[in-house]
Amino acid sequence: MTSRGRVTMPIEQGMDDQLPHILQRIGADAVRNSDGTWLPEITSQLGVKVYETYFPARGNQEFALANLDARPHFYLMSERVTAPAEGPLAVSVMNGYYALQIEPDLGDVQRWWEVIDRTTGEVVPVDGWSVAGEGTDTVVTIAQPAAFHVYTVSFLAWQVWDSTQMYNYTTNNWQDDPTRVREIGYDARHPAAWEFMTTSLRRWCEERPEVDVVRFTTFFYHFTLVFNDLGKEKFVDWFGYSASVSPRAMDAFEAEYGYRLRAEDFVDQGYYNNAFQVPSKAFSDWIDFQNRFVCARVKDLVDIVHEYGKEALMFLGDNWMGTEPYGEQFATTGVDGVVGSVGSAATCRMISDIPSVRYTEGRFLPYFFPDVFTEGGDPLGEANVSWLQSRRAIARKPLERIGYGGYLSLAVKFPEFMDRITQIADEFRSIHEVGEGRLPQSSSIRVGILNCWGAMRSWQTHMVAHALWYKQIYSYLGVLESLAGLPFDLKFVSFDDVRGGALDGLDVVLNVGAAGTAFSGGDNWLDSDVLVAVRGFVARGGGLIGVGEPTAVQSEGAFFQLSDVLGVDKELGFSQSTDRYPVESREHFITEDLPGALNVGEGAGDIFATGDATQILRLQDGSVELAAHQQGEGRGVYLAGLPYSHENSRLLHRAIYWAAGREADFGAQWVPSHPGVEVAVFPEAGKGFVMNNLMEAVSTRLAGRTTGLEGEGEVRKLDLDLEPMESRWIDLA
Amino acid sequence: MTSRGRVTMPIEQGMDDQLPHILQRIGADAVRNSDGTWLPEITSQLGVKVYETYFPARGNQEFALANLDARPHFYLMSERVTAPAEGPLAVSVMNGYYALQIEPDLGDVQRWWEVIDRTTGEVVPVDGWSVAGEGTDTVVTIAQPAAFHVYTVSFLAWQVWDSTQMYNYTTNNWQDDPTRVREIGYDARHPAAWEFMTTSLRRWCEERPEVDVVRFTTFFYHFTLVFNDLGKEKFVDWFGYSASVSPRAMDAFEAEYGYRLRAEDFVDQGYYNNAFQVPSKAFSDWIDFQNRFVCARVKDLVDIVHEYGKEALMFLGDNWMGTEPYGEQFATTGVDGVVGSVGSAATCRMISDIPSVRYTEGRFLPYFFPDVFTEGGDPLGEANVSWLQSRRAIARKPLERIGYGGYLSLAVKFPEFMDRITQIADEFRSIHEVGEGRLPQSSSIRVGILNCWGAMRSWQTHMVAHALWYKQIYSYLGVLESLAGLPFDLKFVSFDDVRGGALDGLDVVLNVGAAGTAFSGGDNWLDSDVLVAVRGFVARGGGLIGVGEPTAVQSEGAFFQLSDVLGVDKELGFSQSTDRYPVESREHFITEDLPGALNVGEGAGDIFATGDATQILRLQDGSVELAAHQQGEGRGVYLAGLPYSHENSRLLHRAIYWAAGREADFGAQWVPSHPGVEVAVFPEAGKGFVMNNLMEAVSTRLAGRTTGLEGEGEVRKLDLDLEPMESRWIDLA
Ligand SMILES: [Mg+2]
Ligand SMILES: [Mg+2]
Ligand SMILES: [Mg+2]
Repeated sequence: MTSRGRVTMPIEQGMDDQLPHILQRIGADAVRNSDGTWLPEITSQLGVKVYETYFPARGNQEFALANLDARPHFYLMSERVTAPAEGPLAVSVMNGYYALQIEPDLGDVQRWWEVIDRTTGEVVPVDGWSVAGEGTDTVVTIAQPAAFHVYTVSFLAWQVWDSTQMYNYTTNNWQDDPTRVREIGYDARHPAAWEFMTTSLRRWCEERPEVDVVRFTTFFYHFTLVFNDLGKEKFVDWFGYSASVSPRAMDAFEAEYGYRLRAEDFVDQGYYNNAFQVPSKAFSDWIDFQNRFVCARVKDLVDIVHEYGKEALMFLGDNWMGTEPYGEQFATTGVDGVVGSVGSAATCRMISDIPSVRYTEGRFLPYFFPDVFTEGGDPLGEANVSWLQSRRAIARKPLERIGYGGYLSLAVKFPEFMDRITQIADEFRSIHEVGEGRLPQSSSIRVGILNCWGAMRSWQTHMVAHALWYKQIYSYLGVLESLAGLPFDLKFVSFDDVRGGALDGLDVVLNVGAAGTAFSGGDNWLDSDVLVAVRGFVARGGGLIGVGEPTAVQSEGAFFQLSDVLGVDKELGFSQSTDRYPVESREHFITEDLPGALNVGEGAGDIFATGDATQILRLQDGSVELAAHQQGEGRGVYLAGLPYSHENSRLLHRAIYWAAGREADFGAQWVPSHPGVEVAVFPEAGKGFVMNNLMEAVSTRLAGRTTGLEGEGEVRKLDLDLEPMESRWIDLA
Repeated sequence: MTSRGRVTMPIEQGMDDQLPHILQRIGADAVRNSDGTWLPEITSQLGVKVYETYFPARGNQEFALANLDARPHFYLMSERVTAPAEGPLAVSVMNGYYALQIEPDLGDVQRWWEVIDRTTGEVVPVDGWSVAGEGTDTVVTIAQPAAFHVYTVSFLAWQVWDSTQMYNYTTNNWQDDPTRVREIGYDARHPAAWEFMTTSLRRWCEERPEVDVVRFTTFFYHFTLVFNDLGKEKFVDWFGYSASVSPRAMDAFEAEYGYRLRAEDFVDQGYYNNAFQVPSKAFSDWIDFQNRFVCARVKDLVDIVHEYGKEALMFLGDNWMGTEPYGEQFATTGVDGVVGSVGSAATCRMISDIPSVRYTEGRFLPYFFPDVFTEGGDPLGEANVSWLQSRRAIARKPLERIGYGGYLSLAVKFPEFMDRITQIADEFRSIHEVGEGRLPQSSSIRVGILNCWGAMRSWQTHMVAHALWYKQIYSYLGVLESLAGLPFDLKFVSFDDVRGGALDGLDVVLNVGAAGTAFSGGDNWLDSDVLVAVRGFVARGGGLIGVGEPTAVQSEGAFFQLSDVLGVDKELGFSQSTDRYPVESREHFITEDLPGALNVGEGAGDIFATGDATQILRLQDGSVELAAHQQGEGRGVYLAGLPYSHENSRLLHRAIYWAAGREADFGAQWVPSHPGVEVAVFPEAGKGFVMNNLMEAVSTRLAGRTTGLEGEGEVRKLDLDLEPMESRWIDLA
């Protein structure tokens, strides 16, 4: 295929001879600099768009040093300290924190700090404690603590070093580089800082006529990233708002919302309102409050960029807190596009599904850095893995653009790699071209994921740090990763949505996660309105798929509150006296492509069938790992976990059809017989995009209607032999 | 050794010639009949004591049929049934129950039955439902249920078949035997039944001058044992009081305690107050109430037995509810002895530690039944396993007697088996004889197990059905099984005991179990008095050993409420944003005899160290399985689980020494270098009883003081080569 466009490449100085050819060959229509590289003089003659990175809230050390009261804040909690048998208790609040990043804000400590007896949950009155010292020597002394109670101090602190720049600085040993400083940030709520941000951006735009796209990295408040006293990462939450706090903001909040926030509203027992916590009223209000502020200020910056005829591209990361790209405010910012790092199919969809922007761009792996582009490195292999992971997501909901980052001069030393990414770029463009710009067809089964966050955190569930592996999430993330490439329109719905009738628009709803987390739902499952809504939905023919500890909260003889729908519950020790006689049914529509054992990852503990009406499809050491249960007109499916694999993705595909009562249609849905192969169907174009997701050649059979996933078309059968990783366009008719 | 006594053998008719020699050889001083055998005429000439089984609460079908209102009751819960979108809800209460065992008591249903909306926990008013039909056709109709709410009916039912006799009947296919009837029981609270019980017992005693010991099997109320509609076991709780209920008893309770019991006080959401549930006030009161009633009536029966110059021996099982052998009332009964089935070291101690009886007797395995005593059976092997399991417990706290049951005529066909049990009897007697009737010495480290039940359920923790394996208990029962053979005086203490200062009398306390259960403690760990007591205990030098989910209840930023002492907590998903850098320390006093991996059984999930002060001794897939933590003057030890093994028992032995800060003494405690060998030390006799617990020969080194576990005696070292299973008496000096 000879096509051009939709691709951004990093360029650098010293390659002027090669650049036109490289860009031409890969079909790049945009270039960018990277950390540590500068655009060459030749750039404006390359006939491509030019991106340049911009940091609104850091980078001018002169301003920062002159306006130390504009530095951003953190709310932090001290260690948990046990009081002695008698006498006062001294708490060194900075224990475990990094003095180069954090400095206690010794302003109005009685207003902003809080001492809590964690043994009783009671707040210690402000006249019961005092603060002495400063910096790392800051000590809170509780005069008369209760003997052997555990205490914590919640304290407000200045951020004395920008988190991302600090990460780059320490990772790259910039302490040996005299040109590097420790960059201090500034808070957009500070009037002088805001004035500086806008005037700086204007000046920057004026001075850079050659730049077409301002790549904001990013706006104001960094996700929560705190280092320990050894300078190692101590706390990371890619969704954390702890670094968005300040007395100024809290006062403004109080004026608007009519109630006063406490330190505990941010510190949250030390959990800092991470996304796994069921969001409190105060935290939900805070997100709303900051989201409106951030989006309003982003709009001001975007307006400036537009005044200069440039585009505003937002990087999805770093100082992105408060933008909430899936929130209602985001459309008001006028941001033209969003670019983010693609680490999986789910993160690809997290970018490509963002509504209200003109385009999205995925930065692919590997980054052109010496760790991979070196002898013994495998850039080709990494590019293949990255492409196979994301291709199935792109085929469902294409990114408008893809790109790479790093040092092009390194990459060109690997010609096979350059060949491969050229193929990838062509393959990517073909989805837009052959698909005629339309989305592939989805099944008419409407699927929802129910959790506490709903649409606002679409594709953002079960993440701690962006796309990293965590022991407690991979067994749930696999559901999202599967769905990112499956032919379903997916809605993320909240419990409030369900209370408002949102299930009427769905055929199958999933509840996925660990008990008590925002993803499972916690005490929402004690609300009879929610329970009745889901039971009614199922009674009318809907499907409920629970993964892990769905609908879980111990009450009235059940742990899974919808055990009546799911047909299973979890043994916590209280019902061991009940005899059970589990019988496995290995043959079922759901498991037709899974002849062997099911990999449920971490598993969900000891799951039992509630009665003989439950079909146990996989039983391991006496525990149910997969079950199917008819309830009224509808159906429940239970999965103990679903780490991503081709087989598990196929299992979920089938489970959704079964839950919807639509298994009779499955044979005509263009689903390949081999679980490692997937198809995106474009009925308007009369084409199907067949992807071999494996690194080996496979043969597979396809069967589907000439009219696509629906319609009256005849059912055609097709046998295909596919090369490793091959994608191929087929004709449906 | 030629000794005699302390052994009970089953005899039967038709073996008159052999009996004297067999009894002589094995040294038996007592004989018994068994189910299906009768004592021969020769019995009175054998020069041994004679036991005969007696059933106070069943066995006279004529009386039972003439007094059907004296039948005992159950409280049972119906299935959980979901209400439809509209219209009434009919609940067939007998669904899943066995008509031959259970019959709804249709008496004053409005007083005794209860309909509960399990979606809200609300009781449905009595005028909101009605009962129709009877027997298996009994239906409760809820006139206007809330749509899609789940309902249950708690109903009172007659026991129309005695549970144990039913079990024997169905297991042995007695339906084919016209001489067998389905025995109906009678309730000791019924005046006519009680009158019948006492007069029958008198008559029985009169008619049996040859009987020396009345073996009560047992008294009045059976443990909870309910069968399903296929006649298979549906619910079993060896500690269950569900079969002790009746309107008569509940009225008497109300008169005495001043409040009215609800059906829910017994049905308990379907959990039926099993021992894993934290006992409610009402259930604790009920135990107290029934315990006093049962013990008073037992005393009356025992008095009759004593009048006739016989002894009263209680079987620990079947209709034993309300006796509570470790309760304060038990001594008032005058029962002479308790006999029970020995299935492990812990069950052996459960029998041998019962206070206030003159003697205890363990019935050993295998039972002389055709299932084992047949071609292909391995009675010798089973005898060895049983003996090795119980010997270590007997060496710590000897049973006064041992015995066997079943058909002697079968056993004599296996001469190697008969030889072996003769050796076992001699070995058993030697512990009494060489030990001079004294208990072996215990370490001066005083050890307690803390749970909701305390002393009343000494050695009875973590059991569902007596000595059976359950998935959720074996990882905890291993602690008890280990302690049953380790040289520690063990106290079982309750949370109320702790509130009353009981920790003052201990050096190390263990908290063992799953979160929320009575064995871990549930909400007791939210009581600051309890937390302060344990923290103070540790601060003054005490040791806390937690196994599984100790001190667990989610509150104020911790799941293990004593995570500050234990140095670990459990990740439930809320603190994943906190970075952890676990480092394993393979070398530690506690693990000196465990070079490899630790078997923690089911494990406890994702356990993390709270800080660098925690020494992680075993780390598996990122989770802590064993940790040691200094806290103040004291120490915490965490174990994710401890299924019984020789290695794990040794590990616990060491953990207790370390927790007590006494590891320096360990080398002189006569602990063999080989974990498969144990020693009971009798300083007064100057002897040690060395046991090779393995079926293979071992060499081991011993080191200990000539004065025993304490004292000023010199430390001696000794090398021993032991035959498989050998026990040997050594001289300490
Ligand atoms: Mg990141
Ligand atoms: Mg208690
Ligand atoms: Mg039993």
